[in-house]
Amino acid sequence: MEIVEEAAIHVLEAGGVTSAKGFSAGGMHCGIRKRKDDLGWLVSEVPTSAAAVYTTNQFQAAPLQVTRESLQSEKPLQAVCVNSGVANACTGEQGLKDAYEMRRAMAEKVNLAEEQVAVASTGLIGDPLPIEKIKAGFQSIGEENDQTVERFEQAILTTDTCTKHVAVQVEIDGKTVTVGGAAKGSGMIDPNMATMLAFITTDASVEESALQNVLKQGTNRTFNMITVDGDSSTNDMVLVMANGKAETETLTEDHPSWSAFVKAFEKVSEQLAKEIARDGEGATKLVEVHVKGATTDQAARSIGKEIISSNLVKTAIYGSDPNWGRIVCAIGYGDEPIDPEKVTVSLGDVTVVDQGLPIPFDEEKAKQPLQQETVPIYVDLHLGDGTATAWGCDLTYEYVRINAAYRT
Amino acid sequence: MEIVEEAAIHVLEAGGVTSAKGFSAGGMHCGIRKRKDDLGWLVSEVPTSAAAVYTTNQFQAAPLQVTRESLQSEKPLQAVCVNSGVANACTGEQGLKDAYEMRRAMAEKVNLAEEQVAVASTGLIGDPLPIEKIKAGFQSIGEENDQTVERFEQAILTTDTCTKHVAVQVEIDGKTVTVGGAAKGSGMIDPNMATMLAFITTDASVEESALQNVLKQGTNRTFNMITVDGDSSTNDMVLVMANGKAETETLTEDHPSWSAFVKAFEKVSEQLAKEIARDGEGATKLVEVHVKGATTDQAARSIGKEIISSNLVKTAIYGSDPNWGRIVCAIGYGDEPIDPEKVTVSLGDVTVVDQGLPIPFDEEKAKQPLQQETVPIYVDLHLGDGTATAWGCDLTYEYVRINAAYRT
Repeated sequence: MEIVEEAAIHVLEAGGVTSAKGFSAGGMHCGIRKRKDDLGWLVSEVPTSAAAVYTTNQFQAAPLQVTRESLQSEKPLQAVCVNSGVANACTGEQGLKDAYEMRRAMAEKVNLAEEQVAVASTGLIGDPLPIEKIKAGFQSIGEENDQTVERFEQAILTTDTCTKHVAVQVEIDGKTVTVGGAAKGSGMIDPNMATMLAFITTDASVEESALQNVLKQGTNRTFNMITVDGDSSTNDMVLVMANGKAETETLTEDHPSWSAFVKAFEKVSEQLAKEIARDGEGATKLVEVHVKGATTDQAARSIGKEIISSNLVKTAIYGSDPNWGRIVCAIGYGDEPIDPEKVTVSLGDVTVVDQGLPIPFDEEKAKQPLQQETVPIYVDLHLGDGTATAWGCDLTYEYVRINAAYRT
Repeated sequence: MEIVEEAAIHVLEAGGVTSAKGFSAGGMHCGIRKRKDDLGWLVSEVPTSAAAVYTTNQFQAAPLQVTRESLQSEKPLQAVCVNSGVANACTGEQGLKDAYEMRRAMAEKVNLAEEQVAVASTGLIGDPLPIEKIKAGFQSIGEENDQTVERFEQAILTTDTCTKHVAVQVEIDGKTVTVGGAAKGSGMIDPNMATMLAFITTDASVEESALQNVLKQGTNRTFNMITVDGDSSTNDMVLVMANGKAETETLTEDHPSWSAFVKAFEKVSEQLAKEIARDGEGATKLVEVHVKGATTDQAARSIGKEIISSNLVKTAIYGSDPNWGRIVCAIGYGDEPIDPEKVTVSLGDVTVVDQGLPIPFDEEKAKQPLQQETVPIYVDLHLGDGTATAWGCDLTYEYVRINAAYRT
């Protein structure tokens, strides 16, 4: 086997979905939401290879069906349009018509075939898509000061409190390859994606099946490892486009630099996933659960998710309460093999449980990691080599406030 | 097949765990908790047939191990002792010793063999059981005004705001058979029992294997169908004792009145389960989700649990927000077969979704069922004959307050 030196990943300051060559993005207010931007677009100069993963919710919103068709068509994807405010989910025949109409309007505006455009929607379920507003919005693309990536990042948000973006660079074939992304999240993040949208762009040239694989694997390790409230939405999607503008060879899983590309890709996915978790509805802290010693990675993932999803753990973290009992309890919820007498739990560098038993700790010292912006929890099951990291957030009064009155 | 007329179930006002003949109960303050009663006992005059079901959490507290031994021994169970304040979970060897010691102390006090006594604990995980306080407490049984069922009901509570008890009567073999129970619940109720204890007594004579079956089936339809916060504890147990003092024949599943007994038993289980859900931590409302038209009862149960467990549904109900989209979303979370285009959802008698599509409804009229003490939600999947009912509660500021500071 060829030995390839691990490529260094360079994180771009203020990078995003247009950091990779040949991508442009914009956003505007078309009138679905009261004041905030609600319509965004992302376009590649040239055709791309593309891949997507979708919510596992059995109710899948109309835009997902239409995007799936675009990706399955023989024409290469080249643009994405997104609206926030209305999810176009549970909208039946009319919803599907509207999603097609949205795709058509975007395609016309940027001179592409319909099948070269993906559509996404996020917001309230059940309301009809205000398609006339969206069409009018597309008409005025370029007329205003709307062609900025910041407005794209804004336009895809719902209850998020901030935009989410990242870009990294890595050397491949002597060329600088950029991978960047933008995402929206907030409530309903679980168990497999859930009200989240993420758009990832790269100027590498990537074979489409390899791109699908890296997306699927990366999503399992990143976007599928975040939880805000255990609810999963009808509209979630992660979409990636690779346009080749960096002029690398076409990357496949056999390419000597494939692992460097995967690393860059997962860095972007992970960063977006963490930003989504940190900005969970009402959240004051990002919780990072590191599980090791599980029988398999899958077992580690499952246990990490149980911990991060526990309302009792989440409220204890909100209260900066080193209530390790709730963590131990959550470890025991699932079917994954554990041995209660081998479990170690640490809050930051304070070990609170060893071999399944509480060990004396300084209460004040154990509180410290819980008062940080990022709360690190370490679990070692001492059974095998399986590892995983899961990200979530605390459960707060503000979460209840936001969600007790979202519609009204 | 013999046709047996359905026996009428008569609910006793203020009935409880000592309504059945030959059972006595009491409680006291032994000093584990600050002021509240924290030690309870329940004794049958004569040996009983008994059965129990336990938490599915892989961390099982010491008292459960000891109780399991008592039930597996050849000596018939005749008494139960319970403490609150400390769960005796994650306490290792010492915890097991303490649980045995608690059992021994109780057995001595009431002149029974150790194996005739079951033990239960509920409260904080990880703290050692204050066994000396418990032993001193048992010494003074009968010395004070402690021999009342109300004090037993009080002594088993943790963050519950009220005691939970019920008793019903039914005619069997021309005799009046009483089934009664007491329970504690509050937080951590899910997915299979979870911080809940329930003690059910009957003066029927019941074959032990039949008793185990009725307990298991009844628990699946009642205690396992409640959710407060999706967390499941290390200490949960439902225990039933049948002492034969009503002088019926020994009931088996072939007895012509078996279904009448099952009905009475499930009535008690259901009532206790509902009281637990209604008194969930911080809850202001009981939520009752009726699912029908599922492919199987199991599918209906699973979908009912998804709805009742959704933080987004729970907060919407707290806000009396007829946010049917979240209910539809929750229906789609799991793997159970659904057809999005067939689903009907009603809030009380207001249908909000039909054939998977929202139908216009009067906002004020739809809010009304959500403002009731018991919120009824009806889901029809229109696929088969599977039905289930699940009970839960709303998610409130108070839930967050209680759980952000339980230990401290």
